[in-house]
Amino acid sequence: MIARGSACARPDLLRAIGDDAAVCSADGRDCLLATVDVLNESVHFTLAGTSPYLLGRKSLAVNLSDIAAMGGRPLYFLVGLSLPKHVSIDFVRELYRGMRSQAQRFNVALAGGDTVAASGGLSISVTLIGRAEKRRVVYRGGARPGDLIYVSGTLGDSALGLALVQQGSPVASRKKLIRRHLDPEPRVALGHALARARLATAMIDISDGLAADLGHILEQSRAGAEVYLEKLPLSRAYRQECVRLSNDFYAPAVCGGEDYELLFTAAPKRRSAVEACARKMGIAVTCIGTIKGNTECLRIIGGQGKEYTLQKKGFCHF
Amino acid sequence: MIARGSACARPDLLRAIGDDAAVCSADGRDCLLATVDVLNESVHFTLAGTSPYLLGRKSLAVNLSDIAAMGGRPLYFLVGLSLPKHVSIDFVRELYRGMRSQAQRFNVALAGGDTVAASGGLSISVTLIGRAEKRRVVYRGGARPGDLIYVSGTLGDSALGLALVQQGSPVASRKKLIRRHLDPEPRVALGHALARARLATAMIDISDGLAADLGHILEQSRAGAEVYLEKLPLSRAYRQECVRLSNDFYAPAVCGGEDYELLFTAAPKRRSAVEACARKMGIAVTCIGTIKGNTECLRIIGGQGKEYTLQKKGFCHF
Repeated sequence: MIARGSACARPDLLRAIGDDAAVCSADGRDCLLATVDVLNESVHFTLAGTSPYLLGRKSLAVNLSDIAAMGGRPLYFLVGLSLPKHVSIDFVRELYRGMRSQAQRFNVALAGGDTVAASGGLSISVTLIGRAEKRRVVYRGGARPGDLIYVSGTLGDSALGLALVQQGSPVASRKKLIRRHLDPEPRVALGHALARARLATAMIDISDGLAADLGHILEQSRAGAEVYLEKLPLSRAYRQECVRLSNDFYAPAVCGGEDYELLFTAAPKRRSAVEACARKMGIAVTCIGTIKGNTECLRIIGGQGKEYTLQKKGFCHF
Repeated sequence: MIARGSACARPDLLRAIGDDAAVCSADGRDCLLATVDVLNESVHFTLAGTSPYLLGRKSLAVNLSDIAAMGGRPLYFLVGLSLPKHVSIDFVRELYRGMRSQAQRFNVALAGGDTVAASGGLSISVTLIGRAEKRRVVYRGGARPGDLIYVSGTLGDSALGLALVQQGSPVASRKKLIRRHLDPEPRVALGHALARARLATAMIDISDGLAADLGHILEQSRAGAEVYLEKLPLSRAYRQECVRLSNDFYAPAVCGGEDYELLFTAAPKRRSAVEACARKMGIAVTCIGTIKGNTECLRIIGGQGKEYTLQKKGFCHF
């Protein structure tokens, strides 16, 4: 990656490129977390497929999810907004109303911004700054052979929601999937609780899909993993709609992005503590597999113990 | 401004929208500064009019200048990059080489980034995080009647440089003006020194032009000002080229943006201390006028004591 070679050394920059957020050492026992995400029209969203209010909420949510995945507390955000002529003042007002509603839920404050003319479509760049105890930050590289692999919530709903948005005119029964795509819920309290209790050995948020994001953990932890398809947490809506939307029943759960659930690993002896912690937060967590010693090899096991291979004609755009 | 109403209250956010950078309270006597700037193709630059290396340097420089204007020290930056198809990998490599060269000069570190596809032209969003002593941050609102108004370096060069870039094919004698536009020098050491010695009562960097940016100081300080045209510091290159490029000799200096010089005010009794401080930094500062009590009224005085009015057919696009 080009940016990687560009990192200038500062001894107080504990982690730059390569995790969910940068980690900078502040005074005392705390450190600073910082992350940026850009959402572009026609690339990440279409104006027809969402509302400015939900777009505002999501543009902050994706950053909140990054801070959650480090186990931190979010604090301040800055917005770089590139506005094309086809976007009205009312649209921008609604966009900020969405951001504000999300900000209030997580007690984060809008610290600054830059609003400029766009040369193309609408572009929203959000930088979020957070804080964590230095010794309790959860990186991607801490998974050890034998650790259990957990995921919060359910998988693949966002990918199915996107497919529904792209088909247009949703019906009421599918609203839940569409909502998961347009208004994802960052798992801030869970991420922070897992870090505070030192239960997670590695953590990432699922933005690129389970397989890709578990791959990041494996790469940084220099480990392998086995994951069991039948253990993947799937929502009722997923089970109802997936057959119609994907030739491969498991592809949206394995490869679909933007669920913004937490994927984390924990030592097997902490199993009951992890599950008690999640219960206390009111969020389901599911053990979907185990970390192995075979470096970077991810085996996904399907029915009758057979290794699962993604059907290419299935859900290939996820 | 729409974003202003969106600011959520956090008691530790000392200043949000409305200054060169946000000011967040960190532990102890220091505070955190954060600022974001977006540069868009066809709006802030053209690919024909600059090089990727200089574009990288400038995209960081404009943020460094904001931290300078608060009197802070820059530390880390994050880059949100929206890449259109017409931008090559080599271009991006050069862009980062430019950022890295600027970063090294000011000992700031690339902390993170997000690189995504663009729906329009190239868009570069840089967020810079810095630090300052809480009690020494210089805001826009501290100017008091009687304070002297200072500016660093020379004015209007960048505006003339832009005009030359737009005309194409520069000749060697004009390189200095073009350089001022394409590769501005953020006054980080001067801003920090003025703040550390508590010499500046208010400070801003000149990005929108002297008149507009002095207007921001006056608005926030609830004060007026008198500025003398004949005192404006103009470079030799400005004096040589301006007649040809602008009907109004002073318009680029008064209204031209992107000089990224510091504009600051100081108590008259600190005059010699201010000038000694600047001399020590090796940067010229010039007293161009005085803060007055007549709220937000900016009088620019020309030859024979007559009030200066911008010639509309002069340099109106600045």
